[in-house]
Amino acid sequence: MLNKQRIIDSFNKQGLMKTLGAELVSIEEGKVSISCELSEKVSQQNGFFHAGALTSIVDSACGYAGLSVMPDNADVLSVEFKINLMKPANIEKVIAIGKVVQAGKTLVICEGIITDPKEEKIYAKMMATMICVRDKN
Amino acid sequence: MLNKQRIIDSFNKQGLMKTLGAELVSIEEGKVSISCELSEKVSQQNGFFHAGALTSIVDSACGYAGLSVMPDNADVLSVEFKINLMKPANIEKVIAIGKVVQAGKTLVICEGIITDPKEEKIYAKMMATMICVRDKN
Amino acid sequence: MLNKQRIIDSFNKQGLMKTLGAELVSIEEGKVSISCELSEKVSQQNGFFHAGALTSIVDSACGYAGLSVMPDNADVLSVEFKINLMKPANIEKVIAIGKVVQAGKTLVICEGIITDPKEEKIYAKMMATMICVRDKN
Amino acid sequence: MLNKQRIIDSFNKQGLMKTLGAELVSIEEGKVSISCELSEKVSQQNGFFHAGALTSIVDSACGYAGLSVMPDNADVLSVEFKINLMKPANIEKVIAIGKVVQAGKTLVICEGIITDPKEEKIYAKMMATMICVRDKN
Repeated sequence: MLNKQRIIDSFNKQGLMKTLGAELVSIEEGKVSISCELSEKVSQQNGFFHAGALTSIVDSACGYAGLSVMPDNADVLSVEFKINLMKPANIEKVIAIGKVVQAGKTLVICEGIITDPKEEKIYAKMMATMICVRDKN
Repeated sequence: MLNKQRIIDSFNKQGLMKTLGAELVSIEEGKVSISCELSEKVSQQNGFFHAGALTSIVDSACGYAGLSVMPDNADVLSVEFKINLMKPANIEKVIAIGKVVQAGKTLVICEGIITDPKEEKIYAKMMATMICVRDKN
Repeated sequence: MLNKQRIIDSFNKQGLMKTLGAELVSIEEGKVSISCELSEKVSQQNGFFHAGALTSIVDSACGYAGLSVMPDNADVLSVEFKINLMKPANIEKVIAIGKVVQAGKTLVICEGIITDPKEEKIYAKMMATMICVRDKN
Repeated sequence: MLNKQRIIDSFNKQGLMKTLGAELVSIEEGKVSISCELSEKVSQQNGFFHAGALTSIVDSACGYAGLSVMPDNADVLSVEFKINLMKPANIEKVIAIGKVVQAGKTLVICEGIITDPKEEKIYAKMMATMICVRDKN
């Protein structure tokens, strides 16, 4: 059964998400969305979203998508990811959507996108490998 | 000739670097270092550096390493990168070092690491493709 | 207009595709499929498809998907790619499908999958950056 | 203690390596080299080494570098890798060198390069995540 609360609790403990002004939008089994508004604090040299800010929120979205399919006593860590930044993200608000594409016992493979709130354009795509860390107590 | 000032100017315009408390440590031709201190504002759920914060500073280090070998009228954009997060970064301060490994006219390939200030351990490794955007005016 | 013949001609010049027993299945604008049958010559130590054989055909599929949207005087080269191998490919025949997800003037970003002939399971996913090389003569 | 024989045995079972004409050059703890000669059977459309052939041998080199640090009852599988193809490999013979950069109990992170026999130029760089599969009987 989907345990939304542990994702909300974990997200709220991620200081970086607060720093970036990121917000959890939705949690489904295997799919998590996070939004972020453009401001000077997440910008690169031209005033667009910094690749690092986009990567941060889509990494969190992928990680929590992974956590949503992991056992209750597990925690999630990013093993690695790759992201293609396809267009300059010169828009007011972005949505990061992370989805599980393959869930193993140890590793969970996720895909993520950065899109606009209407999901009309894709600004970046991520492929990520997450690891399930058990017995976290 | 290495134009350090344009890198300093561009870095200072990256709102995200200020937000994360990141600082330019050194600029050489083809190599740029950036530091960041651990604080709640760059943390993940366990209080370590968030993968996204590490990625942000090493992406900037790689990007500016790339810019350091590009013509004066060029700007740099990240096309894509991949990062492996090898150890939880549970240390007080990290250094991101970006280096050019192959400089073409259009694309510059860089490698980056996240290390401790004494460069004894490597916490993450990045491989990045940067593009030289000309005639930026 | 889609120029299928130059893709067929280029594919036929790829000695590696012949070596692997790979065959062009279909060519559409922005989408190319290639098949390969399991045999000892493409195997790894357990008799499954070698990751390298899968990568070779999905790299070609992505490259030709990219070429299908490039000008007639252009050639395509792989800049980089990343692949996640999600399941051991212990099946008789695989299909590699490459699709363009973002076509710029210089760079074309593609996604590829390795699937079974009925497209029921995905064995591997690739994200690739292709470059358009002009004036090839 | 380094068990070279199991790497030699496993390599000899990889049908793809024979197909490509690849040869094991050296095995050290955490480092494996494989060579391959240019011929029509490993070529792309311009007669150079196909990216897929290069990737195949450097994936095997990374995998066996990983296996060289794993327990005797383990086998190795590629989870994912990313490769940057930095120069067209228009040379008579290439060497793929795989090295372990981080060895965990479950995951081993490796780096690989494609170079010429004198190791003067680097044609491609790989970063790979390998998994240790235990109890293979």
